[in-house]
Amino acid sequence: MDDFDFDPARADGVNASRSAAISSDGRPELGREYPIDARTGRAVMLKAGQRLTVINPSGHQVCDFWTFRYPNLWEFLSMAHTHTALQSIMPKVGDTLVSNARTPLLDFMEDTSPGIHDTVIAACDLPRYRLLGVEGYHDNCTDNLRMALTAIGLSAPAIPAPFNLWMNIPVDGDGNTDWAAPVARPDDRVAFRALVDQVAVMSACPQDLTPVNGEGVAPSDLAFRVDSE
Amino acid sequence: MDDFDFDPARADGVNASRSAAISSDGRPELGREYPIDARTGRAVMLKAGQRLTVINPSGHQVCDFWTFRYPNLWEFLSMAHTHTALQSIMPKVGDTLVSNARTPLLDFMEDTSPGIHDTVIAACDLPRYRLLGVEGYHDNCTDNLRMALTAIGLSAPAIPAPFNLWMNIPVDGDGNTDWAAPVARPDDRVAFRALVDQVAVMSACPQDLTPVNGEGVAPSDLAFRVDSE
Repeated sequence: MDDFDFDPARADGVNASRSAAISSDGRPELGREYPIDARTGRAVMLKAGQRLTVINPSGHQVCDFWTFRYPNLWEFLSMAHTHTALQSIMPKVGDTLVSNARTPLLDFMEDTSPGIHDTVIAACDLPRYRLLGVEGYHDNCTDNLRMALTAIGLSAPAIPAPFNLWMNIPVDGDGNTDWAAPVARPDDRVAFRALVDQVAVMSACPQDLTPVNGEGVAPSDLAFRVDSE
Repeated sequence: MDDFDFDPARADGVNASRSAAISSDGRPELGREYPIDARTGRAVMLKAGQRLTVINPSGHQVCDFWTFRYPNLWEFLSMAHTHTALQSIMPKVGDTLVSNARTPLLDFMEDTSPGIHDTVIAACDLPRYRLLGVEGYHDNCTDNLRMALTAIGLSAPAIPAPFNLWMNIPVDGDGNTDWAAPVARPDDRVAFRALVDQVAVMSACPQDLTPVNGEGVAPSDLAFRVDSE
């Protein structure tokens, strides 16, 4: 008998994401800019028609990004299904991102950055940091997702592959990938229009052992706002 | 209130995969070649150390491929985590494929084909065929996965992104993808060594509206065998 008991909803530790709710149910104050502290995650409820803007103050910080349809979180933003819908692994302004049931979830409205994002790499998690030599706990995007949802009274039904905003993973013609620093600039932002009610989770990636959050710099803050549009 | 009730384990219809169990518990007879009929899926239990060979009699048939660790199926083969582990989106002989908990699951032992496989496209599902204009039921790899597991008394806890054996999805430098015919040859095969106990599911993809299973040909059979190695 195998004693392994992986549970997608259970975090491997506790960090500040657990108490970072923007409100008890995740509803935002429209037009207010909320910080996402370095190394943590926050969740926000979006109603159909609202616009979510994610802001990169430093320009070199990756945002692991997920959305789950509300109230049945079993339907969620799916990179694999979005690849099929877009015939691309690089979403860009004008594209519509879809769920694991092929439902249009988000229109990609604005991107002031050079448009380099990642859709093929898993969110970092404690096993990833173990493999990188870390002992003890290390903040990680997977736990940030779990705890950001817990903080507003929800639970992750699965850990979908994330949309990694500003993460720079060049893919060559043979399929080989690399870990490169973001090419965004300070205060670059992306914006999405929600097409259905959903909860978005954003994690300021705490990866500090590869250069995905910039060469020789510490993980930094992000911010977001929701507007009625 | 949203009445959507996506359930990963529930099939959108019934097809021959539901009654295609190789045995009541999915345990194979070692060394026996089992067919996978065109458009259907079959599941097989693998014990650590066993070798699974997947055979492509026509050379132009795609196999959507998944494995789930046994007995906790919540840990499964993950393309996103495998991309991180391999620093590639194109697994090849000598690589080790990993789970959503970064556990090594399969060593990629043999590939007699030119080595073109896909790891970025979702399994076809009924919503995909709806979008392609199909009315009524259409066989699909997602349902084949669900029913192949049901047939041996198991249930899919989630629908992971598949490893699409022989599926030919060229990705260009800008991230754009295309739908191309397989480049394998008749009787090409791939083989994996199981590193832990797991259940593998193989679906002979029923896609007949794009050329992923060959230009101008019908979806065809696959086959597999398990050896003690």
